[in-house]
Amino acid sequence: MTEATSSRRRGRRTRTESADTRDRILSVAREEFSERGYEKTSVRGIAKAAGVDSALVHHYFGTKEQVFEAAIEVAFAPALNAPEAVADGPLDGVGERLTRFVFGVWENPTTRAPLLAILRSAVDNETAAGVFRRLVVSQLMRRVAAQLDAPDAELRVELAAAQLVGCAMLRYVIKVDPLASADVEQLIARVAPVVQGHLTGG
Amino acid sequence: MTEATSSRRRGRRTRTESADTRDRILSVAREEFSERGYEKTSVRGIAKAAGVDSALVHHYFGTKEQVFEAAIEVAFAPALNAPEAVADGPLDGVGERLTRFVFGVWENPTTRAPLLAILRSAVDNETAAGVFRRLVVSQLMRRVAAQLDAPDAELRVELAAAQLVGCAMLRYVIKVDPLASADVEQLIARVAPVVQGHLTGG
Repeated sequence: MTEATSSRRRGRRTRTESADTRDRILSVAREEFSERGYEKTSVRGIAKAAGVDSALVHHYFGTKEQVFEAAIEVAFAPALNAPEAVADGPLDGVGERLTRFVFGVWENPTTRAPLLAILRSAVDNETAAGVFRRLVVSQLMRRVAAQLDAPDAELRVELAAAQLVGCAMLRYVIKVDPLASADVEQLIARVAPVVQGHLTGG
Repeated sequence: MTEATSSRRRGRRTRTESADTRDRILSVAREEFSERGYEKTSVRGIAKAAGVDSALVHHYFGTKEQVFEAAIEVAFAPALNAPEAVADGPLDGVGERLTRFVFGVWENPTTRAPLLAILRSAVDNETAAGVFRRLVVSQLMRRVAAQLDAPDAELRVELAAAQLVGCAMLRYVIKVDPLASADVEQLIARVAPVVQGHLTGG
């Protein structure tokens, strides 16, 4: 971030070029990670596909893990801000809001790729699993848990998340029918009450 | 299988040696697939670790996909026979029997490795995802669905499976706390009613 800030000070044209390059690198990184998974993706390969030198990728982002985290975080930025909208409002609708939000992110082609990247990578690699825990768990699940008035709020959110992660695995990754081809509204109607039950049930 | 049968005809000593070699290859294959995932595992690597020639692995099992399927199938043999026990008995206890069965397989170190292998590989590779669909879905989930008297039995079983797959992902693969360190009986007590609801709920 400090490099971007200092390059910004150099003037408008440089700032724009630099921001474009950063964006291009992140976009390429997201594609590479989602297609190959964390382990098989290299900073060198990302640099080559983005048409820049590996040193520039390291300069902007640091290690491969940091490139991964930045690539995922940018793609998730709207999603990571959403939990407040999910958690806001009456608690008896939080199950449906969370379920609708998660299926919405998966059904959207723009956000599906980074989700696949993070899921594929987290299953394959301990470093990527750590990024998953930091980003998804801390930023997303903990915020929902904070809204629940229950001593076991975190476990409740994780069991709800397990239902949603499992649906995503079977529908979008392993593609098991009829779950894979079911109408998304039909799925939300079935899954939302279960998520609600985990979050606020007796 | 025909090779094993013909080698069996050659006499007792040969049969035993041949069966030992097959078992050793499958055991090594299971380890390789669970540690590296499907894509990064090679027949050559399995052969080397088992101390045999690659040609012998191909002779016994065929392609890499067939080695994978055989390695997983042998490890799963007891599990794949269990659904009858799971599905037998009163329907109002099927949720707990299925949940207890799945957590039992994951908590057992012997069966956890092949489960990790199949999950890691299925997420990473379309061929392995196909094996997952054939083995787990057809042999396990379809048998449970056959016991349910509902027109949407398959979707019900898949939504129940999604809850269990998601729990396994967060507890054993990505290791999210508190789910990862929670007492297994506490988890079964919370998850079983949800699984039951998916299978037989209104």
